[in-house]
Amino acid sequence: METKRHHVENNKQFPGLNVNSGIKQPPMLNPYAKMRKARPEYSVEAYVKEILKGNRTVLSQAVTLIESNKPEHQEKAQQIIEKCLPYAGKSIRVGITGVPGAGKSTFIDSLGAYILNQGEKLAVLAIDPSSELSKGSILGDKTRMERIGVAANAFIRPSPSAGSLGGVARKTRETIVLCETAGFDTIFVETVGVGQSETAVHSMVDFFLLIQLAGTGDELQGIKRGIMEMADGITINKCDGNNIEKAKLAQAQFQNALHLFPEPPSGWFPKVLTCSAVEDNGIAEIWDMITEYIRFTEQNGFKDAKRHLQAKYWMYESINEYLKNNFYQNEAIAGLLPMYEKQILSNEITSFVAAKKLLDTYFNLTK
Amino acid sequence: METKRHHVENNKQFPGLNVNSGIKQPPMLNPYAKMRKARPEYSVEAYVKEILKGNRTVLSQAVTLIESNKPEHQEKAQQIIEKCLPYAGKSIRVGITGVPGAGKSTFIDSLGAYILNQGEKLAVLAIDPSSELSKGSILGDKTRMERIGVAANAFIRPSPSAGSLGGVARKTRETIVLCETAGFDTIFVETVGVGQSETAVHSMVDFFLLIQLAGTGDELQGIKRGIMEMADGITINKCDGNNIEKAKLAQAQFQNALHLFPEPPSGWFPKVLTCSAVEDNGIAEIWDMITEYIRFTEQNGFKDAKRHLQAKYWMYESINEYLKNNFYQNEAIAGLLPMYEKQILSNEITSFVAAKKLLDTYFNLTK
Repeated sequence: METKRHHVENNKQFPGLNVNSGIKQPPMLNPYAKMRKARPEYSVEAYVKEILKGNRTVLSQAVTLIESNKPEHQEKAQQIIEKCLPYAGKSIRVGITGVPGAGKSTFIDSLGAYILNQGEKLAVLAIDPSSELSKGSILGDKTRMERIGVAANAFIRPSPSAGSLGGVARKTRETIVLCETAGFDTIFVETVGVGQSETAVHSMVDFFLLIQLAGTGDELQGIKRGIMEMADGITINKCDGNNIEKAKLAQAQFQNALHLFPEPPSGWFPKVLTCSAVEDNGIAEIWDMITEYIRFTEQNGFKDAKRHLQAKYWMYESINEYLKNNFYQNEAIAGLLPMYEKQILSNEITSFVAAKKLLDTYFNLTK
Repeated sequence: METKRHHVENNKQFPGLNVNSGIKQPPMLNPYAKMRKARPEYSVEAYVKEILKGNRTVLSQAVTLIESNKPEHQEKAQQIIEKCLPYAGKSIRVGITGVPGAGKSTFIDSLGAYILNQGEKLAVLAIDPSSELSKGSILGDKTRMERIGVAANAFIRPSPSAGSLGGVARKTRETIVLCETAGFDTIFVETVGVGQSETAVHSMVDFFLLIQLAGTGDELQGIKRGIMEMADGITINKCDGNNIEKAKLAQAQFQNALHLFPEPPSGWFPKVLTCSAVEDNGIAEIWDMITEYIRFTEQNGFKDAKRHLQAKYWMYESINEYLKNNFYQNEAIAGLLPMYEKQILSNEITSFVAAKKLLDTYFNLTK
């Protein structure tokens, strides 16, 4: 890159140098390479029509538009989503989390296969903004999803790989709309239970499932603080072989612990189950728990109320994220921040005075 | 107010009308009422000098300046705080929370009296932005603080009554600086465990203590979700009379439950103790736990690291709160919000499109 830029600059200084019209230069690309066939350009209406038919190829292409950062793609994506909105909202949305090693991929394959056997259509999405760091993400590891990976009624889409958590979460949320329009009546949103993304997933699903492992002390460590209190249900996975007794003990411990928490706003007390994903044991009971929760919260009105709150939450979340980005990515602010942080830490100024000075700078600039 | 403004406007239109220099008007105030003696106006330097001497009257007046919303008071307060900053930071800061009924006021009196007996100087502050709603705030109820309420080495200051949580939290944080400068070596920051204020308190103290009651199920309800995971220590209060067995059982339950949580970043596993504040039982053990925690986190460097994070947190928190207020209190935005919320709920637009439209409006206005 350095040399190239240098070269261009030289040519700017001596503009005649790179004009060689005497002898025709050969093309830079291998002329024998096959031209890549251009993808057909669907109209917004065609996209929506095909998605409504359940065309998974077009659905996939529309999701690619959502994930694209090109303005023309984003605009088209928004038009497609807007036209899909009236058809969306009819699925059961389940968030699934657990630390790496909890067996999430095998679990999702097992529960997914069970659901598909019942005649449901299943979409599996993921939120995983830091895909390099979190090695536990199932969706990069389709080998463990032997059954749903090849099922005709399943749609699996890995997490958009780039962008902030807010951006990734938005794209996943919008993908849910398209999947629901395409007739997928169960949506799994998977995340690894170690980062910030659980709150995001919790804010877009109806039921939040935590996969835990048996064990005490160190073995139970690793899950992020606060996640247990978000769960509508917990399952202790790997309840098989020599592990059954330990898993049953962990089940009792978690059930007792959850009783110390206040009643959740749903009115539903989280259940703790055990399962073995590799042996397909206890899987039906987990799906029963989820559907029981859905019935329960449909009856007491919580499901709709929560979805309304979620929709508003995402508007406010998008606004707040944008306001913050606009401030902190401002060049002047970004340049001043380290100095003020230093002055705060050396007790020269208070946090509040630093904040005020930065805000004054920002609002004077944008005036 | 309406009439007054109207009157002023009339006078603007007919400026001669309110000039009555012919007959001297009698004073509006009762001339026999005693003139209230004006408070002496200290200079910033005099304030700092007196605070450093431990003059509680001047300290109290400086806190009043912090709490005042008048710009000239705020400016003076900031100058005083800035000059006090180098002397601050040397106290043990303890956050104390618990639902109404947990016996917080009696507990603070008991623990406070114990600390004062050890020769410490104690300041008790509070964060309680919604003082009408939360009936559990001790500081309105000094009758239960019989001992520390009259102690020469104690300084008790109720929560600033007006303002947003962010504003109240800032004022309490700044009051800590002045109290530390005045030589108070232990600071309690009290809050009721039902609102949003625990995060604020947690972000300004070294040790966060949760007061719980014995009992299971309904009796344990009421504490806000997420608070248990913030606690560095829990005490089961009212462990006396017929309640001892229940309290010991609750202690074991909480201790077990906390073991299911991941290791806190401090490296300190929260302890669960029992006490009876009315009988002054178990109080010494609680103070031992707190000082042990302080020693432990001083040795592993967590205490300093946490205070640095807290100082930065409050700068970012102040900025973020201001950015949000500036947006949502914008008249045009406030006028448009209900419409967009409605359109989101009726699936006409996505949360993201609504956010984008509002942001466009805002940034066009402030340009």
